[in-house]
Amino acid sequence: MTDTTTTDLNSIDLNSDLGESYGRWVLGDDAALFGLVSSANIACGFHAGDPSVMQRSIRLALENDVAIGAHPGYADLRGFGRVGLELPAEQLRNDIVYQLGALAGLCRVEGATLRYVKPHGALYNQMNRDEAVARTVVAAVAAFDPALPLLVLAASGAERVVRDYGHPYRREAFIDRGYLPNGQLQPRSEPGSVTTDPVAAADRALRLVQTGEVSATDGTTLQLRPDSLCVHGDTPGARQLVGLVRQRLTDAGVKVRPCWDTPRPGESTP
Amino acid sequence: MTDTTTTDLNSIDLNSDLGESYGRWVLGDDAALFGLVSSANIACGFHAGDPSVMQRSIRLALENDVAIGAHPGYADLRGFGRVGLELPAEQLRNDIVYQLGALAGLCRVEGATLRYVKPHGALYNQMNRDEAVARTVVAAVAAFDPALPLLVLAASGAERVVRDYGHPYRREAFIDRGYLPNGQLQPRSEPGSVTTDPVAAADRALRLVQTGEVSATDGTTLQLRPDSLCVHGDTPGARQLVGLVRQRLTDAGVKVRPCWDTPRPGESTP
Amino acid sequence: MTDTTTTDLNSIDLNSDLGESYGRWVLGDDAALFGLVSSANIACGFHAGDPSVMQRSIRLALENDVAIGAHPGYADLRGFGRVGLELPAEQLRNDIVYQLGALAGLCRVEGATLRYVKPHGALYNQMNRDEAVARTVVAAVAAFDPALPLLVLAASGAERVVRDYGHPYRREAFIDRGYLPNGQLQPRSEPGSVTTDPVAAADRALRLVQTGEVSATDGTTLQLRPDSLCVHGDTPGARQLVGLVRQRLTDAGVKVRPCWDTPRPGESTP
Amino acid sequence: MTDTTTTDLNSIDLNSDLGESYGRWVLGDDAALFGLVSSANIACGFHAGDPSVMQRSIRLALENDVAIGAHPGYADLRGFGRVGLELPAEQLRNDIVYQLGALAGLCRVEGATLRYVKPHGALYNQMNRDEAVARTVVAAVAAFDPALPLLVLAASGAERVVRDYGHPYRREAFIDRGYLPNGQLQPRSEPGSVTTDPVAAADRALRLVQTGEVSATDGTTLQLRPDSLCVHGDTPGARQLVGLVRQRLTDAGVKVRPCWDTPRPGESTP
Repeated sequence: MTDTTTTDLNSIDLNSDLGESYGRWVLGDDAALFGLVSSANIACGFHAGDPSVMQRSIRLALENDVAIGAHPGYADLRGFGRVGLELPAEQLRNDIVYQLGALAGLCRVEGATLRYVKPHGALYNQMNRDEAVARTVVAAVAAFDPALPLLVLAASGAERVVRDYGHPYRREAFIDRGYLPNGQLQPRSEPGSVTTDPVAAADRALRLVQTGEVSATDGTTLQLRPDSLCVHGDTPGARQLVGLVRQRLTDAGVKVRPCWDTPRPGESTP
Repeated sequence: MTDTTTTDLNSIDLNSDLGESYGRWVLGDDAALFGLVSSANIACGFHAGDPSVMQRSIRLALENDVAIGAHPGYADLRGFGRVGLELPAEQLRNDIVYQLGALAGLCRVEGATLRYVKPHGALYNQMNRDEAVARTVVAAVAAFDPALPLLVLAASGAERVVRDYGHPYRREAFIDRGYLPNGQLQPRSEPGSVTTDPVAAADRALRLVQTGEVSATDGTTLQLRPDSLCVHGDTPGARQLVGLVRQRLTDAGVKVRPCWDTPRPGESTP
Repeated sequence: MTDTTTTDLNSIDLNSDLGESYGRWVLGDDAALFGLVSSANIACGFHAGDPSVMQRSIRLALENDVAIGAHPGYADLRGFGRVGLELPAEQLRNDIVYQLGALAGLCRVEGATLRYVKPHGALYNQMNRDEAVARTVVAAVAAFDPALPLLVLAASGAERVVRDYGHPYRREAFIDRGYLPNGQLQPRSEPGSVTTDPVAAADRALRLVQTGEVSATDGTTLQLRPDSLCVHGDTPGARQLVGLVRQRLTDAGVKVRPCWDTPRPGESTP
Repeated sequence: MTDTTTTDLNSIDLNSDLGESYGRWVLGDDAALFGLVSSANIACGFHAGDPSVMQRSIRLALENDVAIGAHPGYADLRGFGRVGLELPAEQLRNDIVYQLGALAGLCRVEGATLRYVKPHGALYNQMNRDEAVARTVVAAVAAFDPALPLLVLAASGAERVVRDYGHPYRREAFIDRGYLPNGQLQPRSEPGSVTTDPVAAADRALRLVQTGEVSATDGTTLQLRPDSLCVHGDTPGARQLVGLVRQRLTDAGVKVRPCWDTPRPGESTP
């Protein structure tokens, strides 16, 4: 579950799920978060984010010099893409390509560039548990653009699949979600699965950058060596938490910047 | 309402709204129509056409050497995009770009090319009646791709707007819809507004190609000089009607082929 | 536009649009508002409010002894029911009955009673401008339950229609929306159309209860004699504004209570 | 898996999923089927059937003296309710009550009566495999109306749950779907799982009525003793198949009529 590549101890990417409002409904503190992260996973209209929310998110990314990622999910607004759907592979592929194309189209009009893809919610989780789903997602992204990196959970089933496929990718770790000993995220339904303590989150962020490590729920040390840290913008106090994380990283001499230009060690660019 | 450019009397484009199925629901005789038309207006998921229907339509277009057009509409599955929505201009722009991007993404994955845009239903009609809507649509398409032609109703308000804007376009006429004396289409709610008689449709098609003319409901002669004729695939007997139209055109020495490669007279390519 | 019936100067109903969350998206401060109003207009799933949000709203109403009203709207989640749709009358009727039945079903399961109907957003506004729409809505409610009162804008086109129809109704006035001299609400798109000043709102509420009057944007005095005052729960500081309104009313000896049990003067119960 | 109650050999109910059109999309030969069946499972807007389709279905049922059943499904138009969703029990309960209430509301307006409930698609199948889902559905229906019978697959997991719950129910068998030896339906994805041969279907129908038996895919004889036979209206030649089935039953002296008025043996009415 670990690898031996060296990561850059002097910089880290901070990514967050943003642009998850829909019509009249506002979700998350995007105005603040776009000023704190280096990469934005922008919802593509299937689980959240209508076309106008997407446009505003692209503009906020441009203004804040934040890298734009597609955040495709299952077509289920009410379930917010958090309910697992068993779709035929072909349908899942088409749904992903549709969402990537839609966001890429809005990026083109705004003079922005789509830099990466990070699947959302139940789709993200299924990629870690179900190789067939992971392969379908990787193949969909590769068919859309073989040079567009995927952002996957470090040391996960999804990482194995995208690595074996030969598609470019980056590894992420979570600073506010609990880890099971096998490296999977603790389900949101379990108590304590989401941390809202800024100091604990900042400690974990610094440790992840400096040592590549995190402690699982049972105390086991996991080697994650992330290229990017995921922070959440829709939890109470998100702005303060991410602000403190960023401050602590900067104070320790770690530069917060996108990770998409530098291929991972050993990765050949297509 | 007329212009003096010469049209090619030896060839004509036949376009049809295709790919309007959705999930379990099948609409139109796409299998037959893709073999008869030269251009397919493919629904983009907002009024009809889910991503898998879009993919199948793109593949049918490739197999039949049919040009692919985007057929964006209002986001209203139940109303099939036929109910007028008064959307803020920015929202309408974003909705159109989203749909163009989504279809372009699926085209890219299938190795196909998006050749043109024809708005659907209430949006198409509003472009002819409301200059502001027409300008928003033209600007959206131009922002997405300044070389992507719009297909508009010949001698309509929409044509004036796209011509004044300087964006490339082609003119279409309908062979199975009634025309009002002012050149607008007779509303579908009126009796006789849709013809299902193959012979009448074929007669009208041939006259439109050879003289550029059609008779309005009151007998007035309208000069339309179309680049493309629109035929419908969702009416009873559509296959027979379009088959006869194509046969009559071919018998008269008129070649049925896409009209997207040849700019209109006086049109500068961007 | 006025009438001469006497209203009860010692009590008033306070109604608010509640239950407008949807899935992951939270809208409005329902926890606070259910404790301050006497009647809750509960969204029915078409413009907001999924079945679980509806259930929670019904339970909050029961716990707070608040009367439950149906708040049907156009089927447009993204537009939040604020975009006017021109639907065939039959379709509009069916959409309204569907929503009333759905909420009544959830009420039955929770041991609650549906007490009244107040249309939402664009539908509410169209009832004031378009007699045909108003008649369709009134007929739909009357067909569902001839004893279920409608809540309409006082001294409006909608009131004329429901009164002429002979269906029971109550009159409402807004304490945080501007009035045009003709008695219609100032469009939300205009600056100053929504007041967030608690003192101004409380002043207006007290004046409306004690004199039946409100001042229009041009200073004209409108005689409204409302049975119910509408307050909003989704504006910043809504809780404070409604809290102050309620306090001021109570301090002046006005009891805040539902208005559904007492027929309007001259109204025959079916 | 069997029971020893006697069924009425002189009559049988024929039920069919009807009203599954949506907006512009037509599905099934409802005009013909309403004239052939005795009970109609009417879609409630979540997987198919908008409010106007529901109203038309209710009217067709009234005209043809057909019993009206609710056919609630998962909220997934594109997947037609055939994709399994893992919903929290409370949400599933609310979704079912919402749909029952909506259809009951439209029935009330049309002067019709809701007679029974038959879940649709993936929800129907999950009830046979997952006791918790079955209990949630039964509890939802019982909470809505303790006297409203459920129509369940004969000799299934769903039957065990509804029987143990003490809620009224009827048993159905399929004349055009293959049976696995354990009594479950053969998945639609398997070849041969749906029969379109009218003679085979009519033979099976007659045998089911006269002996209560059907042969599974491996030749095993299953004792089903159905109160109702399910026929499909959306397969090619549905009208001919159901017409022949009805003719054969009638010729054999079996009366086709609703089964909702006669409680099953031993069933106490609430």
